[in-house]
Amino acid sequence: IVSKLPDVSTTIFTVMSKLAADHNAINLSQGFPGFESDKTLIDLVSKAMRDGHNQYAPMAGLPALRENVCHKINTLYGSSYNPETEITITAGATQAIFTVITAFISKGDEVIMFTPAYDCYEPAVILNGGKPVNIPLKTPDYHIDLEEVKQKISPATKMIIINSPHNPSGTILSEGDLLQLQELVRNTNILILSDEVYEHIIFDGKKHQSVARFPELAQRSFITASFGKTFHNTGWKMGYCVAPKELMAEFQKVHQYNVFCVNRPIQHALATYLENPENYLELSAFYQKKRDVFLNGIEGSKWEFIPASGTYFQLLSYKNITDENDVDFAKRLTIDHKVASIPTSVFSKNGEDPKVLRFCFAKTEETLTQATEILRKL
Amino acid sequence: IVSKLPDVSTTIFTVMSKLAADHNAINLSQGFPGFESDKTLIDLVSKAMRDGHNQYAPMAGLPALRENVCHKINTLYGSSYNPETEITITAGATQAIFTVITAFISKGDEVIMFTPAYDCYEPAVILNGGKPVNIPLKTPDYHIDLEEVKQKISPATKMIIINSPHNPSGTILSEGDLLQLQELVRNTNILILSDEVYEHIIFDGKKHQSVARFPELAQRSFITASFGKTFHNTGWKMGYCVAPKELMAEFQKVHQYNVFCVNRPIQHALATYLENPENYLELSAFYQKKRDVFLNGIEGSKWEFIPASGTYFQLLSYKNITDENDVDFAKRLTIDHKVASIPTSVFSKNGEDPKVLRFCFAKTEETLTQATEILRKL
Ligand SMILES: CSCCC(=O)C(=O)O
Ligand SMILES: CSCCC(=O)C(=O)O
Repeated sequence: IVSKLPDVSTTIFTVMSKLAADHNAINLSQGFPGFESDKTLIDLVSKAMRDGHNQYAPMAGLPALRENVCHKINTLYGSSYNPETEITITAGATQAIFTVITAFISKGDEVIMFTPAYDCYEPAVILNGGKPVNIPLKTPDYHIDLEEVKQKISPATKMIIINSPHNPSGTILSEGDLLQLQELVRNTNILILSDEVYEHIIFDGKKHQSVARFPELAQRSFITASFGKTFHNTGWKMGYCVAPKELMAEFQKVHQYNVFCVNRPIQHALATYLENPENYLELSAFYQKKRDVFLNGIEGSKWEFIPASGTYFQLLSYKNITDENDVDFAKRLTIDHKVASIPTSVFSKNGEDPKVLRFCFAKTEETLTQATEILRKL
Repeated sequence: IVSKLPDVSTTIFTVMSKLAADHNAINLSQGFPGFESDKTLIDLVSKAMRDGHNQYAPMAGLPALRENVCHKINTLYGSSYNPETEITITAGATQAIFTVITAFISKGDEVIMFTPAYDCYEPAVILNGGKPVNIPLKTPDYHIDLEEVKQKISPATKMIIINSPHNPSGTILSEGDLLQLQELVRNTNILILSDEVYEHIIFDGKKHQSVARFPELAQRSFITASFGKTFHNTGWKMGYCVAPKELMAEFQKVHQYNVFCVNRPIQHALATYLENPENYLELSAFYQKKRDVFLNGIEGSKWEFIPASGTYFQLLSYKNITDENDVDFAKRLTIDHKVASIPTSVFSKNGEDPKVLRFCFAKTEETLTQATEILRKL
């Protein structure tokens, strides 16, 4: 068997979640909530099934859901997307990302991405014969060096993948960053894939700079987003993709032969649930409180935190504790101390190891307190 | 924008279902049940959500579901698949098919498929730079001419896609067909993709010849299957893929970056539901009755039926009614006579038009009677 992905093994998320389960550790590794999705939303799904909405949905998604998603985006970001032609409901954000890359990347195309990067971008590019061009984010605050992007852009550059709020660092792109990016790609055919799955988790009164806010940029952009991250049900595998009509038409050509369409009863439920903006507007305050519990818990310990503006992840530097590499230390922390995290070096491609672990604080306050009590003793 | 799929437009299923809705026609086009999924199964999904099974499932699927799927296959087909390493739960059979093709097909690889063919095979091959090699099934009974397959096999042949029971014709492959195929590919590296989504819908006491029954063939085969077709909930988008360990490992590399995992509460429900074999073993009798209602309904009319042994589709020849091409006639039948079907020429690539329409009889007896009363008047 000749592998098209010889370098791929099991994702770090699967590895660390399994290690956590095997060693009965508090699992702050894989990013998913440790509390329950809203009963109201669950009941809406049950009702949709009982009401007989159990056969194929339209390929692009239920019209009512597309409309409510579109309304949300246009209201929040001042855009003017059309729900008929510019939104597709997907089986999670990962499927949306895979589909964008598959629809546009061909042999020899270069795709610029920033490391540490969520691990699904690169294999999708490679599968399509593309060439990942990794640009390291600049520590300590994980910002994009736009000068370096300018240098790395070549005639073969087909796509730039951005991710704000950023997993794993929690950094967000500013209005200035996006305006500069807009300038950089002006007069090129470069597409932007903007992974915005944490769009509703932004702290300290900051504002999410969706590419949807920048019409010139948006006309060449795909936005991918996740209901699972926003509504605490990552296991339902529901997300969406937004793009201008012509780009969306190409996306849908691939989508219709990849999954054809996605779960219908959940689409009915989400359409109703989105009618109440509180269901997503309160998310920032909800998670900021958890972040603060986590940060207060490690205050005064040897762990150093790297300030974040969004996501439900917190990076902690352990350089005052040990000089082990991050994979070894993350495993030891799980096995011996019963707290699982994600080593960040696996998100990079250059062997860089800044001695930083990622902790997911989408957990109950009780769990977070238990975890930080362990961590602060190290 | 340069399209990677310039020839793709909206699927015929979407086109005809929309036409049916717009003209208030009885929709016997797209293949989905016109009655309800079992309340027991729906309640199991609701329970799983209420019980808090709402976060990411393991990438390959819930262990309990993989075990029950594996047990079903090994019991029915005498195989010995391992649930740990040889089963993956997918977002429908289409996603499984797309993933198999993406994991193995590269530029220049030839993929043999038989036309008329379900419409998702070819675009997936093209997206990966492969070359579809279409071999027409031989009318009137839509059988595979294995002599022709032998001639079309070349050093570039990487995969052969078979589909039994066959959509749209309802033909099934016999034990002899599979033994001959096994012989044909012996001493080659050719992979088999066996689309068996209608495995539990077989008529007149016949037997489904899964490739799983043929160990030598199975060692190079992927089997793709659908819970939606079997349990009357196509809108839940759940299926699975089966293959020997080494092949499954490559499949999972792509799967984990395409959808990562699939809906968790439904997996819990299906695991329980599969414990009762009646839930799938009674399907053949259930659909045979519907098929008979449909065939009795057109008996003595100008429509000629093409005998089928499985699936919930029936082909009817209209050559005694009109010599219109099948796309025009299917549209007219929908708009003027209020019965929607699928023209079969769109499943072929050679412009062949045998004047045959496909009717889906996965409907209530009342609907089938209404439809045949209209059809018999033509
Ligand atoms: C698909 S598993 C990974 C979940 C996640 O988004 C993360 O932990 O970064
Ligand atoms: C994915 S829509 C098509 C459903 C189906 O299997 C068919 O009608 O052939």
